[in-house]
Amino acid sequence: MTESAWIYDISLIPPSLDDNTADADRLLAALSSRFGGALVQADLALIRTLPEQLRRWEWKARCLVFPVRGRRDLVAVFDPDGTGTVAGLAVDLGTTRVVLRLVDLASGDKLAESAFDNPQLAIGPDILARIHHADRPGGLHDLQGLIIDGLNREIAALCKRAGIEPGSIYLVSAAGNTAMTHLFLRLSPHQIIREPYIPAVNRPPVLDAASIGLDVNSGGRVLIFPNIGSYFGGDLIAGILHSGIHLREETAILVDVGTNAEVVMGNRNWLIACAGAAGPALEGGVTKMGMAAGPGVIDRVAVDAATGQFDIGTIGGLPPKGICGSGVIDLAAQLFLAGMVDMRGKFVASRCKDRLVTQDGLAHLTLVDAEDSATGEALILSQADLDSLTRSKAAMYTILETLAITVGVSLTDLSAFYVGGTFGSFIRPESAVAIGMLPDIGLERYQPIGNSSLNGAAQILTSAEAFEELDRIRDRITYMELNVNQDFMNRFSAAKFYPHTDPDRFPSVSPR
Amino acid sequence: MTESAWIYDISLIPPSLDDNTADADRLLAALSSRFGGALVQADLALIRTLPEQLRRWEWKARCLVFPVRGRRDLVAVFDPDGTGTVAGLAVDLGTTRVVLRLVDLASGDKLAESAFDNPQLAIGPDILARIHHADRPGGLHDLQGLIIDGLNREIAALCKRAGIEPGSIYLVSAAGNTAMTHLFLRLSPHQIIREPYIPAVNRPPVLDAASIGLDVNSGGRVLIFPNIGSYFGGDLIAGILHSGIHLREETAILVDVGTNAEVVMGNRNWLIACAGAAGPALEGGVTKMGMAAGPGVIDRVAVDAATGQFDIGTIGGLPPKGICGSGVIDLAAQLFLAGMVDMRGKFVASRCKDRLVTQDGLAHLTLVDAEDSATGEALILSQADLDSLTRSKAAMYTILETLAITVGVSLTDLSAFYVGGTFGSFIRPESAVAIGMLPDIGLERYQPIGNSSLNGAAQILTSAEAFEELDRIRDRITYMELNVNQDFMNRFSAAKFYPHTDPDRFPSVSPR
Repeated sequence: MTESAWIYDISLIPPSLDDNTADADRLLAALSSRFGGALVQADLALIRTLPEQLRRWEWKARCLVFPVRGRRDLVAVFDPDGTGTVAGLAVDLGTTRVVLRLVDLASGDKLAESAFDNPQLAIGPDILARIHHADRPGGLHDLQGLIIDGLNREIAALCKRAGIEPGSIYLVSAAGNTAMTHLFLRLSPHQIIREPYIPAVNRPPVLDAASIGLDVNSGGRVLIFPNIGSYFGGDLIAGILHSGIHLREETAILVDVGTNAEVVMGNRNWLIACAGAAGPALEGGVTKMGMAAGPGVIDRVAVDAATGQFDIGTIGGLPPKGICGSGVIDLAAQLFLAGMVDMRGKFVASRCKDRLVTQDGLAHLTLVDAEDSATGEALILSQADLDSLTRSKAAMYTILETLAITVGVSLTDLSAFYVGGTFGSFIRPESAVAIGMLPDIGLERYQPIGNSSLNGAAQILTSAEAFEELDRIRDRITYMELNVNQDFMNRFSAAKFYPHTDPDRFPSVSPR
Repeated sequence: MTESAWIYDISLIPPSLDDNTADADRLLAALSSRFGGALVQADLALIRTLPEQLRRWEWKARCLVFPVRGRRDLVAVFDPDGTGTVAGLAVDLGTTRVVLRLVDLASGDKLAESAFDNPQLAIGPDILARIHHADRPGGLHDLQGLIIDGLNREIAALCKRAGIEPGSIYLVSAAGNTAMTHLFLRLSPHQIIREPYIPAVNRPPVLDAASIGLDVNSGGRVLIFPNIGSYFGGDLIAGILHSGIHLREETAILVDVGTNAEVVMGNRNWLIACAGAAGPALEGGVTKMGMAAGPGVIDRVAVDAATGQFDIGTIGGLPPKGICGSGVIDLAAQLFLAGMVDMRGKFVASRCKDRLVTQDGLAHLTLVDAEDSATGEALILSQADLDSLTRSKAAMYTILETLAITVGVSLTDLSAFYVGGTFGSFIRPESAVAIGMLPDIGLERYQPIGNSSLNGAAQILTSAEAFEELDRIRDRITYMELNVNQDFMNRFSAAKFYPHTDPDRFPSVSPR
């Protein structure tokens, strides 16, 4: 174990008759001078251990010191010659999926990573259902219990894999959207969905792990990423931190694609953010065959424009059982490029040929025949499914365009376009551009940044600089409430075309 | 309920689509601007209540905000039109006696006061026995349990008398000596009595009442007065605060007379403190008939020098059963002034006459005959008892003299001489001066200040200024370790005479 972001080796002058400063005060003063006179505090439980430990370690100690607002907390002390792991845990509190990463705080190394379905799914697949459930007697308590119990189970398993005890976790850093953060902290999300959409808290205090029932070290601290508003959560702050757009000279954009499109544009001088409902279609959540990415799920579709042949790729190469969000975007793009979907987003019967059938007066495109599918049923995309995707991709583009107009930046001037979020890293930018969901700014500027929420949360665990950026990022962001006025609606209508009413905006897209 | 030291009425601008700051952040920002931008934080438990309460109270709230190091804590919010009592509790954590005062935080009014014997007496009458007990398995836990349980019982009774609920107590301010503070907080006092006499902590953190098991409001805060060292505790800091010697131009002295003589000298520019063992004799704890003040206990003795007649006063005028510390000092002074004790502190047989008997080769003075005493046994002062008192009074004077010499101030130049502590307020200064225990500086300069520890603790509950003084006092005190060298021993030998080897120092004392 070596010194790292939050770990400091301290050597004290032993007390004497001439210097009878108390044990805790002696250690805290030494740490304070290490931090240029900053206030350092310790809990009573930790102070209780100091007299014996400082003497046993001959007035040396390895100290874990974590900043809390207004001061620093001495979280734990260790034998300076000890070899045990001091771990931190980063958590991406996703509505659907929760991802954990265990980190060695001293080396910064990743120890293990795992994910599990958010157990709150049992109460409601979408966050709105959970917010309503929270209003029922005991509902909020249940929701918190589900996520905390789920985390504790996963923490135990993760630690076992990494060969450490959960008690070795001293820091937890959690990022989630505003509603998930509220449910995690047992804060009522009631007002979040009601005008004027006010969270209970934007900057939760740094917590003791025990106070919310997390089974890590009882003296451990939990840092919850702050949010900006009801529709712009800590996961986005973590994403900004990870992307680094807040540090660069040139203007860039970060898009978290999910049910909500959350967008941040800016550079080291300014950051402006907005969020808007893009609809579940982008996550593959609307089509009958839509599902989250997993083995056997279609994540890639290629259509040969000449032959009309479909080349379908699934995760793990298994027989197809459904399609995920990035697969739907691929499919729509390929259909459009092959001329099977027209500029209005409608199936072209003459080109789709016998793949197109009409049921109940609605056109359906058969993607996979019943005999080739893993479910025994054909995988189908209806015109209604496609219309839903069209509205979603139009909403996404309109949000981007509106933000750019508001700040007076052209989308084509952006130096980088970071795509994060639930499935952002799986999107093929060329497909998203082909359907006009994302602007045509050159594929080299698109950068998937993986689970930016988790990555940002993990950064805090090993970087004091990242931690210090946190509140600065939060305070610098101007949140722009999307004003769904006539201008917005006009842009939205224009964006419902493939790729757009104004094809000059998408010079690289040439459908058959 | 009106605004007071820690209570602030806040009126918020209601949130809107244009101002979507979260509820907690809105309230904390309003409080922060009230405090000139100082950081104000709230616990998660309190934040949970805000969305509903702020809306119910139409964006107004009465807030209890208490400073903790580095920031302020929003401890509780109340209906701005409510009429309930918001109470604070001051505690003098005495080794022998624990005193409580319940205060209305809004008005500053005293609601009720009570005292009880420290239940740790069952483990050891003196602090040393308890410190040793703390080293046994479970011993420290027992000791804390005794004091916390005792406090909880007394708090319940006190609240009942005042007609409020213990849950209405939001602030607790506790002052005690360093060892008592350690036992209260379950901190090991092991090192306190071992060279180089190091406490576990000098400045304990401000605590949540629940964390040490105090049955007051679960969100309440507990402030423990800081100590300076093992032999100079928070009770003395409270005493300084109450006496106000840290604010005055002229130099004054504060003496807390007990088993230990704790002394602070200074003015608004400097404060110097020392402490030394004066022996239990001053508390009446050595003589066979010695006991704490109570009904039937002798607290006043007058001896007619001409007739040798004793006039004995007891508390409550009941038949005498023993003698308290101030009674012993009175007795010694009267015996000396009447010529029954000589300059060397020895009984003068020719003047004591038949009151003096010799048993086992040791002279004994009968104070009360068996038939007049409440116990059926004669109340006796032996030469050994008197020698013990002599050493104690000499120690006290020597400590004062040594301190004065060290800082270059003459004792006769002191503008005021505050006497506090366990029985300080009961001492008759003329008697203490007559035996040479306290300097002969004119009775008008002696000021008993009652239970200065309790009074200081209570001051914190209703005065922000007093609170701010606290750390300033602590940081300004220079603690002088009493160096028991040859000079000290020479002064001590001289002070063992009645009133002193150098009678010119005591011009007002004229024994027969």
